[in-house]
Amino acid sequence: MKDFTVENLTEEVIKAYSANTASPRMREIFTALITHLHGFVKDVQLTEPEWFTAIEFLTNTGKKCDDKRQEFILLSDTLGVSMLVDAINHPKGGIGTESTVLGPFFVPGAPDLPHGADIRRRHLDEAETCLVTGRVTDQNGQALAGATLEVWQTAANGFYDVQDASAPEWNLRGRFTTNADGEYALVTEKPVSYPVPTDGPVGRMLDAAGRHAFRPAHLHFMVKADGCEPLITHVFVNGDPYLDSDAVFATKESLVGDFTRSSDAAEAARFGIKAPYSRLAFDFGLMRR
Amino acid sequence: MKDFTVENLTEEVIKAYSANTASPRMREIFTALITHLHGFVKDVQLTEPEWFTAIEFLTNTGKKCDDKRQEFILLSDTLGVSMLVDAINHPKGGIGTESTVLGPFFVPGAPDLPHGADIRRRHLDEAETCLVTGRVTDQNGQALAGATLEVWQTAANGFYDVQDASAPEWNLRGRFTTNADGEYALVTEKPVSYPVPTDGPVGRMLDAAGRHAFRPAHLHFMVKADGCEPLITHVFVNGDPYLDSDAVFATKESLVGDFTRSSDAAEAARFGIKAPYSRLAFDFGLMRR
Repeated sequence: MKDFTVENLTEEVIKAYSANTASPRMREIFTALITHLHGFVKDVQLTEPEWFTAIEFLTNTGKKCDDKRQEFILLSDTLGVSMLVDAINHPKGGIGTESTVLGPFFVPGAPDLPHGADIRRRHLDEAETCLVTGRVTDQNGQALAGATLEVWQTAANGFYDVQDASAPEWNLRGRFTTNADGEYALVTEKPVSYPVPTDGPVGRMLDAAGRHAFRPAHLHFMVKADGCEPLITHVFVNGDPYLDSDAVFATKESLVGDFTRSSDAAEAARFGIKAPYSRLAFDFGLMRR
Repeated sequence: MKDFTVENLTEEVIKAYSANTASPRMREIFTALITHLHGFVKDVQLTEPEWFTAIEFLTNTGKKCDDKRQEFILLSDTLGVSMLVDAINHPKGGIGTESTVLGPFFVPGAPDLPHGADIRRRHLDEAETCLVTGRVTDQNGQALAGATLEVWQTAANGFYDVQDASAPEWNLRGRFTTNADGEYALVTEKPVSYPVPTDGPVGRMLDAAGRHAFRPAHLHFMVKADGCEPLITHVFVNGDPYLDSDAVFATKESLVGDFTRSSDAAEAARFGIKAPYSRLAFDFGLMRR
C-alpha cells in the first residue's frame, strides 16, 4: 500500500490522474494543475488554518455567484488570469483590433437596435450624452456589412444595469448591425470609471493587498461577422486616471479612444441629441478565419 | 499606461499584489499563488472555452456546498492537496501517531458519551458490531487522563449520517474522554469502504480521469489533550481492497489497524454486545507542545 509523504505525493497524484484519463488534453491539464497546485502549497508551506481560509474563500466565492453576479470571473479578472488567457489566445501584433477581457457583466440576448439608436433607457442627471460611430472591416480594411456589434457599459452612477435594482432592464446594452458600408452608430452616455464589486470575497482580497478596485472608464464591445473570428474588447476613455492601474489588468494602448467634445449641431440633430456632446469614433478590424 | 502582454503580465500582477500588501505572509502567498496560477495557464496554453469550463466548475463546486456538504474540501482531498498540507504540517518521523486528512464530513459538537458507549443510533442488518479500545498517551508513553477523542465514520450502507436523510442525528459520532489510565473504549460498527460523493463537480472530475471514487474503510479520530498538539487521523481497516488506491491519498501504513474477530463472551457482556464481534485495539500518541 501507499504511504504518502511530502516527497512522493505530487508524483503519486499525477499518476492517479494520468493512468486512466482518456483525453490527452485532460491528462496535460491535470498534470500541470496538480504540479502547480502542489508547487504553490509547498513553496509557501501552507499551514492548516491558511488552507481552511482558502477553502472558505473559494466556497464563499461560489456562493456569491448567481444569474447576475459572477464572482469567480471577477476573481480570475482581478488575479490577471482572464487577461492572460486573452493574451495567449489573441497574441498582440495582428493587424485586427486587439481584444481584452469579457468581464463578469456581459448578458447574452441584448435587444437588436437600429442604426444610431439610443441605448439609454433612463436619463441620469450626471450622464453626458455620447455619440459613437465607426466601421467594422476585415484585417484588409474591407467593409463588413451585416456584422453585429454588441455594446454594454456602466451607467454614470458607476453600476451596470444588473447591479442596480433601479435600472431599467437592458439599460445601456444593445446589439447593432453594420450597414452596407460596414458602418455602425449608437447613442449612449460617456462611460465613467467605477469600482468592481467589493462586497464579496474578491473585495476582501483586494483589501488584503491594499489595491484599489477601480477600472478605467470603458465601453464593452463584442463584434461578430460571418467568416471572421469574433472580437471581445473594450474602448477605454483617454485621460482616465485609472488607465495605468486597472483593477483587472485589461488595458491596451491601442484600445484607448479619444472621447472629444463636439458642438456639431447638424450631426446632433441627425441623431436626435443636443449639442454639445461627447464624441467617439472607433473602427474595429476583425480577422478572417 | 500599461500595455499588458503574455510576457509582462505575471510580473505586473505580482507587483500589484506586493506594493501595498501590509502582511509579509500575505505578500508571500499572493506572489506564489500568482506565479503558479499564471504558470499553469501558460504551461497548458489554456483556451477560452477551457477557461470558461474552469469558471463553471469552480462556481458549481461552491454552489454544491452547504452546512452538510463541503465540495471544496472534497476537491482539495481528491487532488491530494489536503494530504500535502497535512504532510507539510505533520512531517513523518515523529514518535506520536501520524495524522491524516480531516475530510469533508467532520461535524463539530458531537455528544459527549461515557466510557464504552455505543455510537450506533440505529442498527443496520449488514452492520458488524465492533469494539474499539486503546490508550491515549504522550510521545513518551505517559497516560493522558481526560483527553478527548472524537470519532466519526460511515455506516454500513456507505453513508455518513449527514449524507443520509434516514439516519438519526449524530449516528456514528461521539466524543469520549479517557479515564485515569488514559484508556478509552467505544462500541460501533466495523467501517466499510465507500465512494466519496460523486453527484457533484468532483465526481465529474474523477470520471474525466477514469478514477474510482472509493476510500478504504476507516474510522476518523480527533484526539485532544491539554498541553499537546491536537491529532486528526484515521484508523484504516487492514485488508481493505482500496488501501493502495485511496481516492483522497490519505493512507499511511502506521494507521492501518487490525480489526480481528473476537469471541470473548466476557468482554462482550461487559460492553453489552454479543460475541462474536469485530475488535480493534489502537493507541494514540500525542506530541507535547
